[in-house]
Amino acid sequence: MFSYSSKHFTLDHFVRSTRRTFCTSRTSSVTRDTSTKKGGKVIFSGIQPTGVPHLGNYLGALSNWVKLQRNAAPEDDLVFSIVGWHALTLPQDPKTLASSRSDLLATLLAIGIDPNRSVVFHQDDNQDHTELAWLLSCLTPVGKLRRMTTWKSRLATSRNANDESEVDESLLNTGLFTYPVLQAADILAYRATHVPVGEDQTQHLELSRDLADIFNRTFKSKTLMFPLPCQLNTPSRRILSLKDPTSKMSKSSPDIQSRILLTDSATQIRAKIRAAVTDSVVGITFDPVGRPGTANLLTILAACTDEEAADVARRYEAKGHGHLKADVVDALEEMIKGPRDAFERLRHESAYLSQVAKDGAEKAKARSNITLREVRTRVGLI
Amino acid sequence: MFSYSSKHFTLDHFVRSTRRTFCTSRTSSVTRDTSTKKGGKVIFSGIQPTGVPHLGNYLGALSNWVKLQRNAAPEDDLVFSIVGWHALTLPQDPKTLASSRSDLLATLLAIGIDPNRSVVFHQDDNQDHTELAWLLSCLTPVGKLRRMTTWKSRLATSRNANDESEVDESLLNTGLFTYPVLQAADILAYRATHVPVGEDQTQHLELSRDLADIFNRTFKSKTLMFPLPCQLNTPSRRILSLKDPTSKMSKSSPDIQSRILLTDSATQIRAKIRAAVTDSVVGITFDPVGRPGTANLLTILAACTDEEAADVARRYEAKGHGHLKADVVDALEEMIKGPRDAFERLRHESAYLSQVAKDGAEKAKARSNITLREVRTRVGLI
Repeated sequence: MFSYSSKHFTLDHFVRSTRRTFCTSRTSSVTRDTSTKKGGKVIFSGIQPTGVPHLGNYLGALSNWVKLQRNAAPEDDLVFSIVGWHALTLPQDPKTLASSRSDLLATLLAIGIDPNRSVVFHQDDNQDHTELAWLLSCLTPVGKLRRMTTWKSRLATSRNANDESEVDESLLNTGLFTYPVLQAADILAYRATHVPVGEDQTQHLELSRDLADIFNRTFKSKTLMFPLPCQLNTPSRRILSLKDPTSKMSKSSPDIQSRILLTDSATQIRAKIRAAVTDSVVGITFDPVGRPGTANLLTILAACTDEEAADVARRYEAKGHGHLKADVVDALEEMIKGPRDAFERLRHESAYLSQVAKDGAEKAKARSNITLREVRTRVGLI
Repeated sequence: MFSYSSKHFTLDHFVRSTRRTFCTSRTSSVTRDTSTKKGGKVIFSGIQPTGVPHLGNYLGALSNWVKLQRNAAPEDDLVFSIVGWHALTLPQDPKTLASSRSDLLATLLAIGIDPNRSVVFHQDDNQDHTELAWLLSCLTPVGKLRRMTTWKSRLATSRNANDESEVDESLLNTGLFTYPVLQAADILAYRATHVPVGEDQTQHLELSRDLADIFNRTFKSKTLMFPLPCQLNTPSRRILSLKDPTSKMSKSSPDIQSRILLTDSATQIRAKIRAAVTDSVVGITFDPVGRPGTANLLTILAACTDEEAADVARRYEAKGHGHLKADVVDALEEMIKGPRDAFERLRHESAYLSQVAKDGAEKAKARSNITLREVRTRVGLI
């Protein structure tokens, strides 16, 4: 998943102040041009279809897509992709993948992504991504990919290794190794100017910028082929496991009680929050290091009410964990109810979902076709 | 280029005797099924658009495509591709690549590839290749690609290194490294059963068979997804440099006199053959080790007259090099004249060439679309 990071700016701050701000590049000497034809930003992001999103995905990334959509200028172009090809870099059960793929589209619509405002589509419906990935791969030194750390950590996770040094590289598949090149193609196919990514993806976005720059310099023309995409820092909440609040909430944890799914019922939410690990200190304070479980509940509550966790904590100073948990349950139910009901309705409307996917793919292709035509001309494949 | 090897069989022998012969596999335990819907073979081959083909390309590979076409059974499917995406794995001048791409199509038609009998198309007109390459890359251990020797030798050649140990691997690009996966996709997109490849490509074809087998086992179903493609050993002639008959005739040699191009005029052919390096031994014998230059001329002459070089040598036992060279010039002119004239006519018929390319791409896609639909269903991207 391309998730958001929580650094530096709030989203509103960003949208107000940085419409014409270019991010600085360490690698390029090319004059930057982040303008599109219409003069707006092009924002691209993707998410892997690997199961129902949990609270960490929602508050860490997806809810920001909705905010981006809400706050975008009329001339801005928003492109959101369900990146099924990326999911294949780790083994998947085909039936589960197929239903996750469709359910994720239903989820995006359920949380408020509007297909009439944003381009929302399945990556695997647009072959321009794999073609551009091939062309970019011919400009990507293998050494650059070896230095990427993500494949090592993903391989470690998939093999249940304790850390990256335990990973047997001979098990690495080529898709996982070259994943950042396909990700660069995802972004550059739309000549995206802004990409909301999490900190763990900064290195990949840097590669996308490098490849854009290498292409621009190798196949020079009067106009710049690719703008160098900027990292879009948007506010996000780092949500931790309910059972082990020293690690992130994760779909790969074997303990289902460790995460809230966007499809959880009120009863399930109540049971999971009640069983959440906290501590035996009396009173509530926001102390992420000393009291990670309590701090996590405060972070969740603050996300639901759009406040700062420290501010929320002050209201609960004299109260107990029981009180806090009850309010977290109520706030979560209030936040999730709408999307959950919409999801349950939408997931069965397969004809509608197919139509949305088809329309989205057409809009995506209309954009990427323009890029690819120009790219092919520049490399000499015409 | 996927070129032909010269071992084991003559083409006629092959066509007569092996229509139902399966090649043995060292890697597979899957029951082989090389039949297509219609029960015929599916023969796939590709050639890179990197300049006008020379005599080595023609006698080593292209003339065999024409023979395959002539000798194929009515139910056999022949698919010939100009593989532009592969050309990009080494730096190319875009303008030169664009004209080579078009000229190579004209050449194929000029030498007798019939677009009404064979599917002839530009690889880069069919994105199914890059999509399938991505899907296969997720099943390809990086270790397998590291063991491929071709990228090392191609990198050595491109960097003018004396041997592979001199090559700086940090210069390796990802396209050159993953080239064999795209080549596997080229072949498997058509569920090819037979692939005429040169000895230097045996390792790549073995990888294609491995990937077909891995896919078949990972995404099992009632029917086998991919037949394991067999190496098609067809007769070919190893044509050597006219100036340094210890190495192959090559387009990358700086000395233009070292090779005969299919576009060479009678005057050019005469000049090049007259200046060809031979030896000072009196009389003509076929001795590839002791007299490589003389043997090379005999091989060329034998190829023109469809004889064995040793047989030809016997006719010249008492004659001199001048006599042999004159006859080589005449035979070459006789062989090349037709294709050269056709090429000169066709290369300027750009509307016709575009139409042939368009029709070819449509036929290719009609075939590969069936494969990709089934592949997507099996991996869960539907």
